[in-house]
Amino acid sequence: MSSAVPAPLFPPRRILMGPGPSDIAPSVLAALGAPTVGHLDPYFLKVMDEVQSMLRSVFQTTNELTMSVSGTGSAGMETCVVNLIEPGDRMLVCVNGVFGGRMADVAARCGAEVTKIERPYGEVFTPEEIEAAVKQCQPKVVGIVHAETSTGALQPIEEISKIVHNAGALLLMDCVTSLGGLPVEIDKWQVDAAYSGTQKCLSCPPGLSPVTFSKAANDAISARKTKIASWYFDTLLVRNYWGQSRAYHHTAPINMNYALHEALRQTLAEGLPARFARHKRNHLALRAGIEAMGLSFVVAEQYRLPMLNSIRIPDGADDKAVRGRLLNDFGIEIGGGLGAMAGKVWRVGLMGETSTPRNVLVFLAALEGSLAGKVPAGAGVAAANAFYGAN
Amino acid sequence: MSSAVPAPLFPPRRILMGPGPSDIAPSVLAALGAPTVGHLDPYFLKVMDEVQSMLRSVFQTTNELTMSVSGTGSAGMETCVVNLIEPGDRMLVCVNGVFGGRMADVAARCGAEVTKIERPYGEVFTPEEIEAAVKQCQPKVVGIVHAETSTGALQPIEEISKIVHNAGALLLMDCVTSLGGLPVEIDKWQVDAAYSGTQKCLSCPPGLSPVTFSKAANDAISARKTKIASWYFDTLLVRNYWGQSRAYHHTAPINMNYALHEALRQTLAEGLPARFARHKRNHLALRAGIEAMGLSFVVAEQYRLPMLNSIRIPDGADDKAVRGRLLNDFGIEIGGGLGAMAGKVWRVGLMGETSTPRNVLVFLAALEGSLAGKVPAGAGVAAANAFYGAN
Repeated sequence: MSSAVPAPLFPPRRILMGPGPSDIAPSVLAALGAPTVGHLDPYFLKVMDEVQSMLRSVFQTTNELTMSVSGTGSAGMETCVVNLIEPGDRMLVCVNGVFGGRMADVAARCGAEVTKIERPYGEVFTPEEIEAAVKQCQPKVVGIVHAETSTGALQPIEEISKIVHNAGALLLMDCVTSLGGLPVEIDKWQVDAAYSGTQKCLSCPPGLSPVTFSKAANDAISARKTKIASWYFDTLLVRNYWGQSRAYHHTAPINMNYALHEALRQTLAEGLPARFARHKRNHLALRAGIEAMGLSFVVAEQYRLPMLNSIRIPDGADDKAVRGRLLNDFGIEIGGGLGAMAGKVWRVGLMGETSTPRNVLVFLAALEGSLAGKVPAGAGVAAANAFYGAN
Repeated sequence: MSSAVPAPLFPPRRILMGPGPSDIAPSVLAALGAPTVGHLDPYFLKVMDEVQSMLRSVFQTTNELTMSVSGTGSAGMETCVVNLIEPGDRMLVCVNGVFGGRMADVAARCGAEVTKIERPYGEVFTPEEIEAAVKQCQPKVVGIVHAETSTGALQPIEEISKIVHNAGALLLMDCVTSLGGLPVEIDKWQVDAAYSGTQKCLSCPPGLSPVTFSKAANDAISARKTKIASWYFDTLLVRNYWGQSRAYHHTAPINMNYALHEALRQTLAEGLPARFARHKRNHLALRAGIEAMGLSFVVAEQYRLPMLNSIRIPDGADDKAVRGRLLNDFGIEIGGGLGAMAGKVWRVGLMGETSTPRNVLVFLAALEGSLAGKVPAGAGVAAANAFYGAN
């Protein structure tokens, strides 16, 4: 209850190369700090319409129920699960990292009878594995992670989607880390519900979670026999605010939606194919540097995410000391390992605004300095430079 | 899926005199747009510590579990209820407006056996009514709204708190609209759980919900036999991120917490007693003007909130036309009636930064213009000027 007033904030300028948040463009920060209007102001309703329309473009969908949930990515996960699951419903959750595990936890709290199938961290599921599990448990919903932020693994979705639908189930997909950095084709892949975060490849500060629901998912929600366990995440209520009736539900985070509007504008102005190509190019340059330093990736090449690079910590290197030096001497944030990978890997993000040749070079240079004596001097930077020269 | 990119945002500058959001100070908008750092960055952990400490000052509490929930005010409501209630627990909810009704809805979704007691919109509960209801239903938790945003009524809490505790129950209080504008004394009143919003008298954009839990509430949460139904709002997990272990839970809305930090700094720099006196003075000036125009308040004088003024719409005035003119011609937002009060009242907010003599005068002047012919010309402004001259 002390009344001492702290000093004003003056945050340092980091290069955000962890698992998110990623670097934020000045225009997005400016939009965030624009004058606040009311949540039922005609101006804000237009902002919502445009956010919704741009989210549909980024999700590659015509889904009517497409919006930003007023919470971070995990709030989007909970929104999808709590709306689709009624107590006693069967849900199959595919767990190959922390976020699949989290989805299973959320589903159980919503009263689902959860069946988990697991793959070791860093690996992905085959369609055959999913098919066998779906046959056995006959789920209402199958939950899977497109881009596991905890491991850096990319899960192919299209074949799995067919299997799930052939079994009459709904497909729920986590695309927190992939949206805006890799193709996420909701309609083409027939994904029934998907959630993302703003702070990854969209490069908007954390605080909102883009979600989208197919007609089949919507119908399943409308056909529920029980009330949705969460009032805050109840899409039957929230959809009235995002839809034509504009009925008040909760006070939307106005300024966060301004920022998302600007981040989506930047994303679409760049163009999705160009944006995906940029993510891939900088990932390949990073890879050239990392391999030239004698370091290795956790994930097999064909399943590697371009925006989240899990790199094995070399023998003799002190995880925290290296990350501390990168942060304190160079203002570069990278992520440590999560869950089973704590202390064993570094997670290097190249998401959205962060994904630039400049950042790849400075990171490799700073990592070389931090691992001096353990890696050949100059090799990583030289290899990345050679890659950029040739590509 | 159109790829047309909307124009950049250029939000109008409103005077926000509705039920929230309120006007935002330039320094708070600047903090909102400051460079984003990571959610485990030592700099951000210090921001969290300072936010927590300042929230304790504003809540007038030493409660360890005091923090900002990563969602708007209703997310704070859900956090309190879902943590305190296990399926089958009895909860008494006092309903005298929309937000008491919402709390009853949230409690039922969490599996509570809900008993509602009701008062007409605009009125408050007597200790005797609470005592009778508590005796009858023997609840685990009693939920009540300190400042009903839908009606403008102020509920005295202290005597009710004694009754609740004498019956061995926990007291949950909604102080969304009161915190920062009226005394909210968590420890002195022995409130066990309370939630607020950032966009009312703290004058920070919407997006976070300050909450606090007493030791008794915390013990009740720790003693639960069932898992908390929400993962996102699970204080047993979130407290580890806000506490010493700093364990990752979800990615906190970094920039929103910067803004809250600055808004709390402004609140404490002004001083709580001075801030409360300012809210009262401007309310009394508004009241002088409103009464001089021949208009009337919904709530009896002794229970009137200074920051949320419910004014009866005079006969013959067109609710939407008047609010439309205020917004379009003068950039002034006021609120319409909610629930049973729709079309019958205007809700005029004088919250935080909005509560200034300048705003009182411009609102009265603009209202006089919008009601020309129905109210005596100049009377409202003259009365408010006279009040300020004398006070």
